[in-house]
Amino acid sequence: MTDAGGEPKHSGRALAALRGLLAAGLERPDGRLPSEPTLEKRLGFSRQALRRALEVLEAEGLVWRNRADALFVNLPERRDAPLSPVGGILEARLRLEPELAALAALRARPEDLRLMRLCARREKAAGDLDARELWDGALHRLIAVAAANPGLLAAFEALAAARAGDAWRGALEAADWRQVSGLHGVGDHETLIDAIAGGDPEAAAAAMRAHLLTVAERAAALVEGRAR
Amino acid sequence: MTDAGGEPKHSGRALAALRGLLAAGLERPDGRLPSEPTLEKRLGFSRQALRRALEVLEAEGLVWRNRADALFVNLPERRDAPLSPVGGILEARLRLEPELAALAALRARPEDLRLMRLCARREKAAGDLDARELWDGALHRLIAVAAANPGLLAAFEALAAARAGDAWRGALEAADWRQVSGLHGVGDHETLIDAIAGGDPEAAAAAMRAHLLTVAERAAALVEGRAR
Repeated sequence: MTDAGGEPKHSGRALAALRGLLAAGLERPDGRLPSEPTLEKRLGFSRQALRRALEVLEAEGLVWRNRADALFVNLPERRDAPLSPVGGILEARLRLEPELAALAALRARPEDLRLMRLCARREKAAGDLDARELWDGALHRLIAVAAANPGLLAAFEALAAARAGDAWRGALEAADWRQVSGLHGVGDHETLIDAIAGGDPEAAAAAMRAHLLTVAERAAALVEGRAR
Repeated sequence: MTDAGGEPKHSGRALAALRGLLAAGLERPDGRLPSEPTLEKRLGFSRQALRRALEVLEAEGLVWRNRADALFVNLPERRDAPLSPVGGILEARLRLEPELAALAALRARPEDLRLMRLCARREKAAGDLDARELWDGALHRLIAVAAANPGLLAAFEALAAARAGDAWRGALEAADWRQVSGLHGVGDHETLIDAIAGGDPEAAAAAMRAHLLTVAERAAALVEGRAR
């Protein structure tokens, strides 16, 4: 597709589609990709947009061409994660959620705050780990909603999906859930919600950071206690 | 599904599945949801996990029960976005990408930096907006990859997907793309990559923040100039 001036468009979308194709796995055991005309037809982008997108993947070393110009996929090099899965999740939450809390402090409506406090009460009253985590997750999501930025909410939900079935939950489940009731001190979430209600973004971000670190420290102590 | 102690699990996943169902739209024009046994069968969660997840949605006001205990969906209240779409995207990028640049400063390998510099060169050499945005996007994604945190990469990709087809690109396309070549000063991306290569997370985050603000200011000036 080209615009009036003849410039191609949508190479970025073609690139995203090709990344999806690579992530979904190969068509042929030898790693050969479909030909450009086939890709063009199947993905619905212009030849030029596809060629440009393939140039990026070639530069990144993810695809290469043989001497006959046929395309092949390189398996991406496995990157050693610098952190354990649990550490990676904590790191990600510590980078994203204080930013969301700061925006929520600027934008939360009384109804948002009422719902946050309701979640905190229900979490406190929960009788098992499943219910506790459910209301905890709902509370953290309400903070992301109150931040009122659709792109950041999408980012929060992608991170939450990456956490589902993660090592963190597995480690907690291996521990006695009755001990896990100590993970949130009684006041932790109330303190966090008060900071958001206070309307000061810096204070809200700091409260979120402190909250996540406290939970992580208690979880680590619990999991280590179990391992001993 | 219950564990040995009889506690239910996976209410959080049931909640995510129900949120997906609500987002996909209703089955019946009157907003009535399928019955709990039908939901149980279709979604594959235990009745207890479903009931717990529905409690959260009821607390949030997204579903309600009539006197016969049938479930109905409330359309979520439209939330007035505090920012224009372009402003929202800039805000989201300013919250997330400096954090990624900071981690990349700690973890980028020589090969990551080589690829970043290659993208910057290709972007500089690009002859139109499509190619420029393609290589710009590839560079920002390489920074997210170099941050080496799978959850944050998922968050970055969700935000990038939310940006595709956004008002930002539309506004740029409405302007003359030849002017857009001024959006990145020649040195902008090199300065950013140098900061990441320097290994100082604070400096890299600051360079990303400055980079995004500079681009945004130039884009705003361009779009406003066009509107006048």
